[in-house]
Amino acid sequence: MRRVTIFEQTSLDGFFADANGDMSWAHKDDPEWNAFAGSNARSGGALLFGRVTYELMAKFWPTPEAKEIMPAVAEGMNRMSKYVFSRTLDQVTWSNTTLLKGEPAEEVRKLKREVGPDLVILGSGSIVSQLAQAGLIDGYQIVVNPIILGRGKSLFETVTRRLDLRLIDRKPFRNGNTVLTFDSAA
Amino acid sequence: MRRVTIFEQTSLDGFFADANGDMSWAHKDDPEWNAFAGSNARSGGALLFGRVTYELMAKFWPTPEAKEIMPAVAEGMNRMSKYVFSRTLDQVTWSNTTLLKGEPAEEVRKLKREVGPDLVILGSGSIVSQLAQAGLIDGYQIVVNPIILGRGKSLFETVTRRLDLRLIDRKPFRNGNTVLTFDSAA
Repeated sequence: MRRVTIFEQTSLDGFFADANGDMSWAHKDDPEWNAFAGSNARSGGALLFGRVTYELMAKFWPTPEAKEIMPAVAEGMNRMSKYVFSRTLDQVTWSNTTLLKGEPAEEVRKLKREVGPDLVILGSGSIVSQLAQAGLIDGYQIVVNPIILGRGKSLFETVTRRLDLRLIDRKPFRNGNTVLTFDSAA
Repeated sequence: MRRVTIFEQTSLDGFFADANGDMSWAHKDDPEWNAFAGSNARSGGALLFGRVTYELMAKFWPTPEAKEIMPAVAEGMNRMSKYVFSRTLDQVTWSNTTLLKGEPAEEVRKLKREVGPDLVILGSGSIVSQLAQAGLIDGYQIVVNPIILGRGKSLFETVTRRLDLRLIDRKPFRNGNTVLTFDSAA
Protein backbone atom coordinates (compact mmCIF):
# COMPACT_ATOMS: atom_id res chain seq x y z
CA MET A 1 0.00 0.00 0.00
CA ARG A 2 1.28 3.48 -0.86
CA ARG A 3 2.24 5.60 2.13
CA VAL A 4 0.91 9.13 2.53
CA THR A 5 3.27 11.56 4.25
CA ILE A 6 3.11 15.28 4.87
CA PHE A 7 5.94 17.82 4.71
CA GLU A 8 4.95 20.94 6.58
CA GLN A 9 6.40 24.11 8.02
CA THR A 10 5.21 25.06 11.49
CA SER A 11 5.76 27.88 13.94
CA LEU A 12 6.36 26.98 17.60
CA ASP A 13 2.72 27.77 18.26
CA GLY A 14 1.55 25.31 15.65
CA PHE A 15 0.69 27.45 12.62
CA PHE A 16 1.65 26.72 9.00
CA ALA A 17 0.53 30.18 7.84
CA ASP A 18 -0.04 33.44 9.64
CA ALA A 19 -3.50 34.99 10.07
CA ASN A 20 -3.28 36.47 6.54
CA GLY A 21 -2.22 33.16 4.97
CA ASP A 22 1.38 34.39 4.64
CA MET A 23 4.05 31.67 4.75
CA SER A 24 7.08 33.82 3.89
CA TRP A 25 8.30 33.72 7.53
CA ALA A 26 9.25 30.10 6.90
CA HIS A 27 11.40 30.91 3.90
CA LYS A 28 15.05 29.94 4.35
CA ASP A 29 17.82 30.36 1.82
CA ASP A 30 21.14 28.87 2.88
CA PRO A 31 23.22 26.11 1.29
CA GLU A 32 22.51 23.51 3.99
CA TRP A 33 18.75 24.07 3.79
CA ASN A 34 18.67 24.26 -0.01
CA ALA A 35 20.52 20.94 -0.25
CA PHE A 36 17.95 19.31 2.02
CA ALA A 37 14.99 20.79 0.09
CA GLY A 38 16.58 19.68 -3.17
CA SER A 39 17.12 16.10 -2.02
CA ASN A 40 13.53 15.98 -0.74
CA ALA A 41 12.33 17.10 -4.18
CA ARG A 42 14.37 14.29 -5.80
CA SER A 43 12.81 11.62 -3.59
CA GLY A 44 10.57 10.35 -6.38
CA GLY A 45 7.18 10.39 -4.65
CA ALA A 46 4.01 11.81 -6.11
CA LEU A 47 2.62 15.07 -4.72
CA LEU A 48 -0.84 15.79 -3.35
CA PHE A 49 -2.17 19.35 -3.04
CA GLY A 50 -5.21 21.28 -1.98
CA ARG A 51 -6.35 23.88 -4.49
CA VAL A 52 -4.84 26.91 -2.75
CA THR A 53 -1.37 25.41 -2.41
CA TYR A 54 -1.59 23.97 -5.91
CA GLU A 55 -2.26 27.37 -7.45
CA LEU A 56 0.66 28.95 -5.56
CA MET A 57 3.01 26.18 -6.69
CA ALA A 58 1.74 25.98 -10.28
CA LYS A 59 2.32 29.71 -10.67
CA PHE A 60 5.91 29.54 -9.43
CA TRP A 61 7.75 26.31 -10.24
CA PRO A 62 7.35 26.28 -14.04
CA THR A 63 8.81 29.82 -14.37
CA PRO A 64 12.34 30.65 -15.54
CA GLU A 65 12.86 32.45 -12.19
CA ALA A 66 12.20 29.25 -10.21
CA LYS A 67 14.56 27.29 -12.46
CA GLU A 68 17.24 29.89 -11.88
CA ILE A 69 16.84 30.32 -8.11
CA MET A 70 16.34 26.67 -7.10
CA PRO A 71 17.11 24.52 -10.15
CA ALA A 72 17.10 21.11 -8.40
CA VAL A 73 13.81 21.73 -6.60
CA ALA A 74 12.16 23.23 -9.71
CA GLU A 75 13.19 20.27 -11.86
CA GLY A 76 11.76 17.82 -9.33
CA MET A 77 8.53 19.75 -8.78
CA ASN A 78 7.82 19.99 -12.51
CA ARG A 79 8.68 16.35 -13.22
CA MET A 80 6.90 14.60 -10.35
CA SER A 81 3.35 13.24 -10.60
CA LYS A 82 0.96 15.64 -8.93
CA TYR A 83 -2.66 15.39 -7.76
CA VAL A 84 -4.81 18.35 -6.83
CA PHE A 85 -8.13 18.19 -4.94
CA SER A 86 -10.61 20.76 -6.14
CA ARG A 87 -14.32 21.02 -6.67
CA THR A 88 -13.93 24.38 -8.44
CA LEU A 89 -11.08 23.89 -10.92
CA ASP A 90 -12.07 22.58 -14.36
CA GLN A 91 -8.63 21.92 -15.70
CA VAL A 92 -5.01 21.88 -14.67
CA THR A 93 -2.12 23.18 -16.72
CA TRP A 94 0.96 22.28 -14.66
CA SER A 95 2.87 19.32 -16.11
CA ASN A 96 2.03 15.80 -14.85
CA THR A 97 -0.95 16.91 -12.78
CA THR A 98 -4.23 15.03 -12.25
CA LEU A 99 -7.37 16.77 -11.00
CA LEU A 100 -9.36 14.91 -8.32
CA LYS A 101 -12.97 16.07 -7.88
CA GLY A 102 -14.10 13.65 -5.15
CA GLU A 103 -14.06 13.90 -1.38
CA PRO A 104 -10.36 13.96 -0.31
CA ALA A 105 -10.44 11.05 2.16
CA GLU A 106 -12.23 8.85 -0.40
CA GLU A 107 -9.83 9.79 -3.21
CA VAL A 108 -6.83 9.08 -0.99
CA ARG A 109 -8.19 5.66 0.02
CA LYS A 110 -8.42 4.88 -3.72
CA LEU A 111 -4.92 6.19 -4.48
CA LYS A 112 -3.44 4.16 -1.62
CA ARG A 113 -4.81 0.95 -3.13
CA GLU A 114 -3.28 1.71 -6.55
CA VAL A 115 0.28 0.77 -7.44
CA GLY A 116 2.58 3.78 -7.59
CA PRO A 117 5.08 5.90 -5.70
CA ASP A 118 4.40 7.10 -2.17
CA LEU A 119 2.34 10.27 -1.85
CA VAL A 120 3.65 13.46 -0.26
CA ILE A 121 1.49 16.42 0.75
CA LEU A 122 3.07 19.89 0.85
CA GLY A 123 1.21 22.72 2.58
CA SER A 124 -2.51 22.20 1.83
CA GLY A 125 -3.68 22.71 5.41
CA SER A 126 -7.34 21.86 4.97
CA ILE A 127 -6.51 18.62 3.13
CA VAL A 128 -3.99 17.62 5.81
CA SER A 129 -6.54 18.27 8.51
CA GLN A 130 -9.22 16.11 6.82
CA LEU A 131 -6.82 13.26 6.11
CA ALA A 132 -5.32 13.34 9.62
CA GLN A 133 -8.79 13.16 11.13
CA ALA A 134 -9.60 10.19 8.85
CA GLY A 135 -6.42 8.38 9.95
CA LEU A 136 -4.98 8.38 6.41
CA ILE A 137 -1.59 9.99 7.10
CA ASP A 138 1.21 7.50 7.66
CA GLY A 139 4.15 9.86 8.11
CA TYR A 140 4.62 13.42 9.34
CA GLN A 141 7.70 15.47 8.45
CA ILE A 142 7.42 18.73 10.37
CA VAL A 143 9.80 21.67 10.06
CA VAL A 144 9.78 23.41 13.44
CA ASN A 145 10.73 27.05 12.79
CA PRO A 146 12.28 29.35 15.44
CA ILE A 147 9.31 31.70 15.54
CA ILE A 148 6.06 32.38 17.39
CA LEU A 149 3.28 33.81 15.21
CA GLY A 150 0.60 34.46 17.84
CA ARG A 151 -2.20 34.19 15.27
CA GLY A 152 -2.42 31.86 12.32
CA LYS A 153 -3.83 28.83 10.57
CA SER A 154 -3.37 25.41 12.13
CA LEU A 155 -2.65 22.29 10.08
CA PHE A 156 -4.94 20.25 12.29
CA GLU A 157 -7.85 22.65 12.63
CA THR A 158 -10.62 20.11 12.10
CA VAL A 159 -8.91 17.29 13.99
CA THR A 160 -11.02 16.43 17.04
CA ARG A 161 -9.09 13.46 18.36
CA ARG A 162 -5.63 12.86 19.75
CA LEU A 163 -3.08 11.45 17.31
CA ASP A 164 -0.15 9.69 18.96
CA LEU A 165 2.99 9.67 16.83
CA ARG A 166 6.28 7.80 16.95
CA LEU A 167 9.39 9.91 16.40
CA ILE A 168 11.69 8.30 13.84
CA ASP A 169 14.16 11.05 12.91
CA ARG A 170 15.41 14.50 13.87
CA LYS A 171 17.44 16.73 11.54
CA PRO A 172 19.00 19.89 12.98
CA PHE A 173 19.80 22.84 10.70
CA ARG A 174 22.07 25.80 11.37
CA ASN A 175 19.30 28.21 10.31
CA GLY A 176 17.41 27.28 13.51
CA ASN A 177 14.98 24.85 11.87
CA THR A 178 14.56 21.35 13.29
CA VAL A 179 12.95 18.75 11.03
CA LEU A 180 11.09 16.13 13.05
CA THR A 181 9.87 12.98 11.30
CA PHE A 182 7.13 10.84 12.82
CA ASP A 183 5.15 7.76 11.89
CA SER A 184 1.56 7.37 12.93
CA ALA A 185 1.60 5.26 16.10
CA ALA A 186 -1.91 3.87 15.43
CA MET B 1 19.21 42.02 35.10
CA ARG B 2 17.48 38.74 35.94
CA ARG B 3 16.48 36.66 32.95
CA VAL B 4 12.96 35.28 32.59
CA THR B 5 12.70 31.93 30.84
CA ILE B 6 9.81 29.57 30.25
CA PHE B 7 9.83 25.77 30.37
CA GLU B 8 6.80 24.42 28.55
CA GLN B 9 5.38 21.25 27.11
CA THR B 10 3.81 21.53 23.67
CA SER B 11 2.02 19.26 21.24
CA LEU B 12 3.01 19.46 17.56
CA ASP B 13 -0.03 21.65 16.99
CA GLY B 14 1.08 24.15 19.61
CA PHE B 15 -1.02 23.32 22.67
CA PHE B 16 0.25 23.06 26.25
CA ALA B 17 -3.05 21.56 27.50
CA ASP B 18 -5.90 19.81 25.73
CA ALA B 19 -9.36 21.37 25.40
CA ASN B 20 -10.24 20.18 28.94
CA GLY B 21 -7.03 21.57 30.44
CA ASP B 22 -5.53 18.08 30.70
CA MET B 23 -1.73 17.91 30.50
CA SER B 24 -1.29 14.21 31.30
CA TRP B 25 -0.48 13.39 27.64
CA ALA B 26 2.87 15.12 28.21
CA HIS B 27 3.76 12.94 31.19
CA LYS B 28 6.91 10.87 30.63
CA ASP B 29 8.51 8.51 33.11
CA ASP B 30 11.79 7.03 31.93
CA PRO B 31 15.29 7.31 33.45
CA GLU B 32 16.68 9.62 30.75
CA TRP B 33 13.75 12.03 31.03
CA ASN B 34 13.63 11.94 34.84
CA ALA B 35 17.36 12.76 35.02
CA PHE B 36 16.78 15.80 32.79
CA ALA B 37 13.75 16.99 34.79
CA GLY B 38 15.70 16.51 38.03
CA SER B 39 18.70 18.51 36.83
CA ASN B 40 16.36 21.28 35.63
CA ALA B 41 14.78 21.38 39.11
CA ARG B 42 18.24 21.72 40.67
CA SER B 43 19.17 24.69 38.48
CA GLY B 44 18.68 27.18 41.30
CA GLY B 45 16.36 29.68 39.63
CA ALA B 46 13.22 31.08 41.18
CA LEU B 47 9.84 29.94 39.84
CA LEU B 48 6.95 32.05 38.57
CA PHE B 49 3.42 30.66 38.31
CA GLY B 50 -0.07 31.65 37.34
CA ARG B 51 -2.70 30.73 39.90
CA VAL B 52 -3.99 27.58 38.13
CA THR B 53 -0.56 26.02 37.71
CA TYR B 54 0.45 27.10 41.20
CA GLU B 55 -2.51 25.30 42.77
CA LEU B 56 -1.78 22.10 40.83
CA MET B 57 1.87 22.18 41.88
CA ALA B 58 1.26 23.20 45.51
CA LYS B 59 -1.13 20.28 45.90
CA PHE B 60 1.36 17.74 44.58
CA TRP B 61 5.02 18.51 45.31
CA PRO B 62 4.84 18.77 49.13
CA THR B 63 3.19 15.32 49.43
CA PRO B 64 4.97 12.11 50.52
CA GLU B 65 3.90 10.58 47.17
CA ALA B 66 5.80 13.23 45.20
CA LYS B 67 8.88 12.75 47.37
CA GLU B 68 8.74 9.02 46.74
CA ILE B 69 8.04 9.10 42.98
CA MET B 70 10.42 11.93 41.97
CA PRO B 71 12.61 12.75 44.98
CA ALA B 72 15.09 15.06 43.23
CA VAL B 73 12.39 17.12 41.51
CA ALA B 74 10.23 17.31 44.67
CA GLU B 75 13.16 18.48 46.78
CA GLY B 76 13.98 21.21 44.26
CA MET B 77 10.39 22.36 43.81
CA ASN B 78 9.80 22.67 47.54
CA ARG B 79 13.09 24.45 48.23
CA MET B 80 13.17 26.99 45.38
CA SER B 81 11.81 30.53 45.72
CA LYS B 82 8.39 30.74 44.10
CA TYR B 83 6.13 33.60 43.02
CA VAL B 84 2.47 33.26 42.17
CA PHE B 85 0.34 35.84 40.34
CA SER B 86 -3.21 35.96 41.62
CA ARG B 87 -5.87 38.53 42.26
CA THR B 88 -8.08 35.97 44.03
CA LEU B 89 -5.76 34.13 46.43
CA ASP B 90 -5.38 35.71 49.89
CA GLN B 91 -2.54 33.59 51.14
CA VAL B 92 -0.12 30.92 50.01
CA THR B 93 0.88 27.87 52.02
CA TRP B 94 3.57 26.21 49.88
CA SER B 95 7.09 26.75 51.26
CA ASN B 96 9.11 29.73 49.99
CA THR B 97 6.23 31.25 47.99
CA THR B 98 5.46 34.95 47.54
CA LEU B 99 2.02 36.13 46.38
CA LEU B 100 2.02 38.91 43.74
CA LYS B 101 -1.25 40.80 43.38
CA GLY B 102 -0.26 43.31 40.68
CA GLU B 103 -0.50 43.16 36.92
CA PRO B 104 1.90 40.38 35.74
CA ALA B 105 3.96 42.43 33.26
CA GLU B 106 4.44 45.19 35.83
CA GLU B 107 5.40 42.75 38.60
CA VAL B 108 7.90 41.03 36.29
CA ARG B 109 9.50 44.33 35.31
CA LYS B 110 10.02 44.98 39.04
CA LEU B 111 11.40 41.49 39.73
CA LYS B 112 13.83 41.79 36.82
CA ARG B 113 15.33 44.93 38.35
CA GLU B 114 15.87 43.23 41.73
CA VAL B 115 18.96 41.20 42.53
CA GLY B 116 18.23 37.48 42.63
CA PRO B 117 18.32 34.25 40.71
CA ASP B 118 16.90 33.99 37.21
CA LEU B 119 13.15 33.41 36.94
CA VAL B 120 11.63 30.31 35.35
CA ILE B 121 7.96 29.95 34.41
CA LEU B 122 6.44 26.46 34.32
CA GLY B 123 3.04 25.97 32.65
CA SER B 124 0.97 29.08 33.48
CA GLY B 125 -0.27 29.63 29.93
CA SER B 126 -2.07 32.93 30.45
CA ILE B 127 0.94 34.46 32.24
CA VAL B 128 3.31 33.28 29.50
CA SER B 129 1.05 34.78 26.87
CA GLN B 130 0.90 38.20 28.59
CA LEU B 131 4.65 38.30 29.23
CA ALA B 132 5.51 37.18 25.69
CA GLN B 133 3.30 39.91 24.25
CA ALA B 134 5.01 42.47 26.53
CA GLY B 135 8.47 41.32 25.34
CA LEU B 136 9.50 40.21 28.83
CA ILE B 137 10.56 36.62 28.08
CA ASP B 138 14.28 36.21 27.44
CA GLY B 139 14.47 32.45 26.96
CA TYR B 140 12.11 29.74 25.73
CA GLN B 141 12.67 26.07 26.57
CA ILE B 142 10.02 24.13 24.67
CA VAL B 143 9.44 20.38 24.96
CA VAL B 144 8.04 19.27 21.60
CA ASN B 145 5.98 16.12 22.27
CA PRO B 146 5.26 13.47 19.60
CA ILE B 147 1.52 14.09 19.61
CA ILE B 148 -1.21 16.08 17.83
CA LEU B 149 -4.08 17.16 20.09
CA GLY B 150 -6.42 18.77 17.54
CA ARG B 151 -8.03 20.98 20.17
CA GLY B 152 -6.38 22.69 23.11
CA LYS B 153 -5.02 25.74 24.85
CA SER B 154 -2.21 27.70 23.25
CA LEU B 155 0.65 29.20 25.24
CA PHE B 156 0.57 32.30 23.07
CA GLU B 157 -3.17 32.86 22.82
CA THR B 158 -3.12 36.62 23.38
CA VAL B 159 0.08 37.26 21.42
CA THR B 160 -0.75 39.44 18.43
CA ARG B 161 2.72 40.00 17.03
CA ARG B 162 5.43 37.85 15.55
CA LEU B 163 8.25 36.87 17.92
CA ASP B 164 11.47 35.89 16.19
CA LEU B 165 13.64 33.55 18.24
CA ARG B 166 17.24 32.35 18.02
CA LEU B 167 17.76 28.62 18.52
CA ILE B 168 20.54 27.96 21.01
CA ASP B 169 20.17 24.27 21.92
CA ARG B 170 18.41 21.04 20.96
CA LYS B 171 18.17 18.02 23.25
CA PRO B 172 16.84 14.76 21.81
CA PHE B 173 15.22 12.17 24.10
CA ARG B 174 14.53 8.51 23.41
CA ASN B 175 10.91 8.95 24.55
CA GLY B 176 10.27 11.02 21.39
CA ASN B 177 10.49 14.43 23.05
CA THR B 178 12.77 17.10 21.62
CA VAL B 179 13.68 20.01 23.90
CA LEU B 180 14.34 23.17 21.89
CA THR B 181 15.90 26.15 23.64
CA PHE B 182 15.62 29.65 22.17
CA ASP B 183 16.61 33.17 23.11
CA SER B 184 14.48 36.09 22.15
CA ALA B 185 16.00 37.52 18.96
CA ALA B 186 14.68 41.03 19.71
